[in-house]
Amino acid sequence: MSSSSSSQKLKVGLLGATGTVGQRFILQLADHPQFELAALGASSSSAGKPYVQAVQGRWKQIRRVPSNVAQMPVYECKPEHFAECQVVFSGLDSGPAGPVEDAFRKAELRVFSNAKNYRTDPLCPLVVPLVNPEHMEILPYQRQQVGTKTGFIVTNANCSTTGIVVPLKALEAKFGPLDKILVNTMQAISGAGYPGVSSLDILDNVVPFISGEEEKIEWETAKILGGIKSDKTAFDYHEQDALKVSAQCNRVPVIDGHMECVSVSFKNRPAPSVEEVKKCFEEFVTEAQTIGVHSAPAQAITLHEEQDRPQPRLDRDWQNGAGVNVGRVRECPVFDIKFVVLSNNVMIGAATSSVMNAEIALAKGYLS
Amino acid sequence: MSSSSSSQKLKVGLLGATGTVGQRFILQLADHPQFELAALGASSSSAGKPYVQAVQGRWKQIRRVPSNVAQMPVYECKPEHFAECQVVFSGLDSGPAGPVEDAFRKAELRVFSNAKNYRTDPLCPLVVPLVNPEHMEILPYQRQQVGTKTGFIVTNANCSTTGIVVPLKALEAKFGPLDKILVNTMQAISGAGYPGVSSLDILDNVVPFISGEEEKIEWETAKILGGIKSDKTAFDYHEQDALKVSAQCNRVPVIDGHMECVSVSFKNRPAPSVEEVKKCFEEFVTEAQTIGVHSAPAQAITLHEEQDRPQPRLDRDWQNGAGVNVGRVRECPVFDIKFVVLSNNVMIGAATSSVMNAEIALAKGYLS
Amino acid sequence: MSSSSSSQKLKVGLLGATGTVGQRFILQLADHPQFELAALGASSSSAGKPYVQAVQGRWKQIRRVPSNVAQMPVYECKPEHFAECQVVFSGLDSGPAGPVEDAFRKAELRVFSNAKNYRTDPLCPLVVPLVNPEHMEILPYQRQQVGTKTGFIVTNANCSTTGIVVPLKALEAKFGPLDKILVNTMQAISGAGYPGVSSLDILDNVVPFISGEEEKIEWETAKILGGIKSDKTAFDYHEQDALKVSAQCNRVPVIDGHMECVSVSFKNRPAPSVEEVKKCFEEFVTEAQTIGVHSAPAQAITLHEEQDRPQPRLDRDWQNGAGVNVGRVRECPVFDIKFVVLSNNVMIGAATSSVMNAEIALAKGYLS
Amino acid sequence: MSSSSSSQKLKVGLLGATGTVGQRFILQLADHPQFELAALGASSSSAGKPYVQAVQGRWKQIRRVPSNVAQMPVYECKPEHFAECQVVFSGLDSGPAGPVEDAFRKAELRVFSNAKNYRTDPLCPLVVPLVNPEHMEILPYQRQQVGTKTGFIVTNANCSTTGIVVPLKALEAKFGPLDKILVNTMQAISGAGYPGVSSLDILDNVVPFISGEEEKIEWETAKILGGIKSDKTAFDYHEQDALKVSAQCNRVPVIDGHMECVSVSFKNRPAPSVEEVKKCFEEFVTEAQTIGVHSAPAQAITLHEEQDRPQPRLDRDWQNGAGVNVGRVRECPVFDIKFVVLSNNVMIGAATSSVMNAEIALAKGYLS
Repeated sequence: MSSSSSSQKLKVGLLGATGTVGQRFILQLADHPQFELAALGASSSSAGKPYVQAVQGRWKQIRRVPSNVAQMPVYECKPEHFAECQVVFSGLDSGPAGPVEDAFRKAELRVFSNAKNYRTDPLCPLVVPLVNPEHMEILPYQRQQVGTKTGFIVTNANCSTTGIVVPLKALEAKFGPLDKILVNTMQAISGAGYPGVSSLDILDNVVPFISGEEEKIEWETAKILGGIKSDKTAFDYHEQDALKVSAQCNRVPVIDGHMECVSVSFKNRPAPSVEEVKKCFEEFVTEAQTIGVHSAPAQAITLHEEQDRPQPRLDRDWQNGAGVNVGRVRECPVFDIKFVVLSNNVMIGAATSSVMNAEIALAKGYLS
Repeated sequence: MSSSSSSQKLKVGLLGATGTVGQRFILQLADHPQFELAALGASSSSAGKPYVQAVQGRWKQIRRVPSNVAQMPVYECKPEHFAECQVVFSGLDSGPAGPVEDAFRKAELRVFSNAKNYRTDPLCPLVVPLVNPEHMEILPYQRQQVGTKTGFIVTNANCSTTGIVVPLKALEAKFGPLDKILVNTMQAISGAGYPGVSSLDILDNVVPFISGEEEKIEWETAKILGGIKSDKTAFDYHEQDALKVSAQCNRVPVIDGHMECVSVSFKNRPAPSVEEVKKCFEEFVTEAQTIGVHSAPAQAITLHEEQDRPQPRLDRDWQNGAGVNVGRVRECPVFDIKFVVLSNNVMIGAATSSVMNAEIALAKGYLS
Repeated sequence: MSSSSSSQKLKVGLLGATGTVGQRFILQLADHPQFELAALGASSSSAGKPYVQAVQGRWKQIRRVPSNVAQMPVYECKPEHFAECQVVFSGLDSGPAGPVEDAFRKAELRVFSNAKNYRTDPLCPLVVPLVNPEHMEILPYQRQQVGTKTGFIVTNANCSTTGIVVPLKALEAKFGPLDKILVNTMQAISGAGYPGVSSLDILDNVVPFISGEEEKIEWETAKILGGIKSDKTAFDYHEQDALKVSAQCNRVPVIDGHMECVSVSFKNRPAPSVEEVKKCFEEFVTEAQTIGVHSAPAQAITLHEEQDRPQPRLDRDWQNGAGVNVGRVRECPVFDIKFVVLSNNVMIGAATSSVMNAEIALAKGYLS
Repeated sequence: MSSSSSSQKLKVGLLGATGTVGQRFILQLADHPQFELAALGASSSSAGKPYVQAVQGRWKQIRRVPSNVAQMPVYECKPEHFAECQVVFSGLDSGPAGPVEDAFRKAELRVFSNAKNYRTDPLCPLVVPLVNPEHMEILPYQRQQVGTKTGFIVTNANCSTTGIVVPLKALEAKFGPLDKILVNTMQAISGAGYPGVSSLDILDNVVPFISGEEEKIEWETAKILGGIKSDKTAFDYHEQDALKVSAQCNRVPVIDGHMECVSVSFKNRPAPSVEEVKKCFEEFVTEAQTIGVHSAPAQAITLHEEQDRPQPRLDRDWQNGAGVNVGRVRECPVFDIKFVVLSNNVMIGAATSSVMNAEIALAKGYLS
């Protein structure tokens, strides 16, 4: 598939390799044309074991452990074990992620993290690859401030934020700033990791609460949709000051795929028509697609015209979960437009975002 | 439980007795202290059979067919078979409901219907018993216009409307008119009847569409929360003209119990605080409770303070499903207040509403 | 319901009060006519809190915490806190159950335990109340051997064993010894406690393994169906020596209610006919019913004639889950007869068995 | 993928193209290296429409309608519309399948059918491709008896039979005839087609009955495991006369993948050990693999050593569902050996079997 021999690939490491997100990274990276998975890190209880043994009883993927990963040794998450890597991906839980990711950055590794710890850091870009890769322009300033030559941290967004900011970005790019956003989520159980949600809590049930999730959507959306200042030293929330976001988050008995019902109003009048919005979604092209990075989907937004689509079970794996699905675009009697979004929370909502961010960083020269 | 001997009870009939809603009516009416189930109607394929045989293979209730109903004969839905009844309840599908219910009204029966056909009729009250029983004051005028002496039709609301109008009514009664309402529903499969939703459509899935449901919520809410004109000949939608309601409806893999996420803004400023809203919900008392009708719940609105409640599986049967559950009352960054509502779609959302409406009508003298 | 004033009731304690089984004990005992719940025990992390607070976030019952229990203090599981009790029920996990239950026995309390620890003890009766209450006749000898005056331990069976031994006992009582038994179980998630089974493991899935379950069924069945020696000092497995039992156990996405498919062959020829077996099930009366203990079901075995019943969701709560449901009785092309059994694993399969055992012990004089 | 240009492929038709099984055929045949899908048949209500329109609202596959099929016209199931085809696959329901398939045979088409109608026909082979392709040797005699030159009917087995006969065949091939077989199934909802199983029947539930299923397993197993007489004019059930099979069939809330718990005893003593049985499964190679047909799995039986595998959700798509999964091989206290089998009911259990049968027939010269 790629002409690059393994020796030409960039050596990458993976932190939190045995967890739910870590397993998705493994599947993304096992046969990546540009990255070679060279070192695995996990908790001390896993350290010293071959990967397939460390993950035994916890591997919950439909694909098997890739044969070229199965016998790789698992290390503790210390930079000394990742000396030959230039990049590390982090699927760590937020508990250990803070100090560990910082240690790897200080050891001059480029960290692409799925954890929440540095998302709010004013020096760290919070990048949804289909939305705001230009936020990486702050990386030289981040290095300068933390005193590294090559090391930095790039984060990607929470899975439920990721789904909605793609169509919201498309709307803003075409029709100008949004004014108000209401979003209600119906989120899959895989978002909570493993063992995560008890079956007694979710069979024949809906849980109308996910700790911290609503705050993340409301806050992250503003940072992601905001710009970066012209001197590339800070993100620009001012433009978004007036953007109001309200989220209600629910857990539903679905394995993968977050559904979100969105209502939006626009600042500019008249607001676009339903047909204009549909066209905007279909025509939305992102930089990740333009520069042709490996994991970018053919279509950033797949527009569904059937009245009962998208649906998690039928649409979450479309384009390997790398794009988002939008459907039921219609007028909102209270706001301007309403629609539903489906995104694959374990793909574009997690590992795929981190990997695509690294692919973009590579294409734009941030990894040299 | 009741001192009234069976001979003192009001004889009632049931149309659509074998369907999902009809089965709930059976359970409500089998040992009702004021009503005696005297005649059952269903489609011609069931006519002539004892009830337990007509419903065989379709009885999907946890309680068994009540012994005093099991051997009752099932008739076609023609008034001649209901001659000894003064009241009929209708669990008919919307297909046959229109002409059948009208025929029973013309035959001087009081019809309490769960079907949608007459909800939009300007002469027919659309009554959620915990919200707007005063709409029955139009009944004398309805009789006059359709030329009956005693016959009339009272409808109750769609299951997803019923859940939200109870807390919305409480808010309007205390804080004045609402301005805007956004609601997102996560609705149980039992709302679609039997066989209803295919398991292939809903296992590990969410379907973001329920035919006609969003329109019903948006329209019915305005009629129910509106008043009745002082001359009792029409409903007053004027007051509600400015009330904007937007709904997004979803089917989720839950057996019973509709969850709804609601955001509201008030006309009057300043808007009430979270604490004032909670107090308002807890203190809300309805006429059905004041006059003490049999099926009225002890508490119209049960306020949950736990951050992850209400939940369908744990809370839908509280008070036999006759009240509604509200939780997660909090500020909305876009509107004023947001909260979640859980109502039992097959109880207060269907049969219980019809029965409670009849109980109220009896208490207020409309059945004499 | 009972004329006994609270002062006349026997004071009982509950160990493991906050767990899944403990919660079911609470609901059984809160308004029991003969037992008064006087002391609650749980782990040290719960000790010192009122019950409702100790169980917060873990109470997963549809009924609320009973008002007369909510404010009861929770103690550590030490006999000194249960001084006024004559009986304790144990819903402890098998980890702590061994030494704790023994300590309570030595403190002269009668222990009725749902834990597995003493089931295999040759001095401890393993009693399914609808099957072998006569095994309690060993209790005087147990006391003598362990040196207590009143203290003893009675265990009840594993939930999946309990379901099948009721119809098997009925068959042996009527048609003589069984020869071979094959059983395949489809067990509910509640059998694994809370949080128990991860939703990622069981949604859209079956897990063909439950640790230790098959061995329990195979071993417990032999003890329960075996007799007690005439000198009341040991159980008689000899009679059952030839009884061969083979079990395959599976976890399915069902909340409550274990389904079991059973095939049996009889020692005596000719084997009974399908009609004789059905009649045997329907006519089966147990000592618990004869002596009229409070929790005994009206019918020990409910025979279903519909070809697709029993079903967990529709039949598990019949008779408050105190009996068992049998259906699809038919000839087996390999053995003699096959049928399915449904039992409520959290009722007759757990707390209800313990409570009914204590009621029987009370009726037969073992508690005085 | 294949060097054969489309003009070199064998033209095939598909009957019942819009149903659940038909959709799987579409996905198997859309890019098949040897077969070219040339004509589609369905009911008269679909006739005249392009496929994508005929199947609208009923296409429940995760993959989209293949682009080269979407615009193909749908015909009524009459041979005149399939004149250019040499082979037809049938995903018809048993209602129309009988006369329709016979009409196609008489029109000299080779029919590979998933319907049950001709499975019991003494002239029609009932072939599980991984088990008994040699049964096709009866085809010349079938043609002779029905008076065709090329036309014939080959059936494949019921989905729940297919899963178990693969390991049973492996055992008989290695250890000689089996004596007794008990099987309990836990079957996926997709086995019932669409809309099929009502969600109200299966959410939080198990249904212990599938109409006709137990009889099919008991009967089909004997035909498939039996041989063909030396003169190739009849199947030989004699050898299997003593083979006793007993099945209990259950529907569980799983989307795809039938789990089956099997206990077997052997005629020859001593019976093989657990290790010998495991080795036998792993080493089992079928003729479909030896002659290298396109859809044959690399491994006919995948042996799982983890104690809780196989599981439907994790293992049903292994090898594109073309093999079967066996796990938990262990001694049976009543019979000799017990184990669990998982097979993908919509792949090897349906369309894949038909297609693989045609591939085998092609390789063996039955299609020339």
